[in-house]
Amino acid sequence: MTTDKFMQAAIDEARKGLAEGGIPIGSVLVHDGKIIGRGHNRRVQQGSAILHGEMDALENAGRQPASVYKEATLYTTLSPCAMCSGAILLYGIKQVIIGENTTFLGEEQLLASRGVGLDVRHDEDCKKMMRDFIEAKPQLWNEDIGR
Amino acid sequence: MTTDKFMQAAIDEARKGLAEGGIPIGSVLVHDGKIIGRGHNRRVQQGSAILHGEMDALENAGRQPASVYKEATLYTTLSPCAMCSGAILLYGIKQVIIGENTTFLGEEQLLASRGVGLDVRHDEDCKKMMRDFIEAKPQLWNEDIGR
Repeated sequence: MTTDKFMQAAIDEARKGLAEGGIPIGSVLVHDGKIIGRGHNRRVQQGSAILHGEMDALENAGRQPASVYKEATLYTTLSPCAMCSGAILLYGIKQVIIGENTTFLGEEQLLASRGVGLDVRHDEDCKKMMRDFIEAKPQLWNEDIGR
Repeated sequence: MTTDKFMQAAIDEARKGLAEGGIPIGSVLVHDGKIIGRGHNRRVQQGSAILHGEMDALENAGRQPASVYKEATLYTTLSPCAMCSGAILLYGIKQVIIGENTTFLGEEQLLASRGVGLDVRHDEDCKKMMRDFIEAKPQLWNEDIGR
């Protein structure tokens, strides 16, 4: 169990997605000690190709000035894929907290090479959630990561 | 004037966005000689932080199998930013046709380094549309590219 309330909020989002029949990845965008956007993967729920957890959190945060993104921290239960990493780079988010990168390793190297600070928590709850999901629905998981 | 019907469709999308009061960037996703998704930037129209033209086209194409993306070509009126480039990489789109990269140069180097074929058309209509827009609404443009 994480003791970080923001990572817990991201995990809660992932679990909400799972309960909806979706892919259990969640994310929150934090600025000035407050969650300004929260979201989870909506591939199944909305037939979406772009609403990964991180994208959904960014979308739900709404239009923000560059100054907010630059001071914000993105929490995500899973290592961010190329699309979500690209969004992080577009908006100049400088800090990303990652639940785990064991079941899927995203574009962490690219992010680090551009100066984004990464903190991988190796969270057992996040790992178990994804392991169980990938085992149960491998095709859906492959679709979500373009395989 | 372009003689490429797919680039023209992307330009038509951009103009539709402009007529709605939005940012004039359009895109179409083409597979097997047919447009399977079309879109334009919806920052203004939907208060969206993630619906760039390319993302909107991908979203409107719906959930597609990996095999479709791998054979698809993405047309966009403007050089794709980090987020849209990341989406291209996620889905393994191998060919991107770009209207222009003079008013904004996106992540073309990253895309090329990952084996994505790029064809920049240096289209005068695309350039003029963006030049006029950036001159008229510089703050909105900066917001869209995270500045």
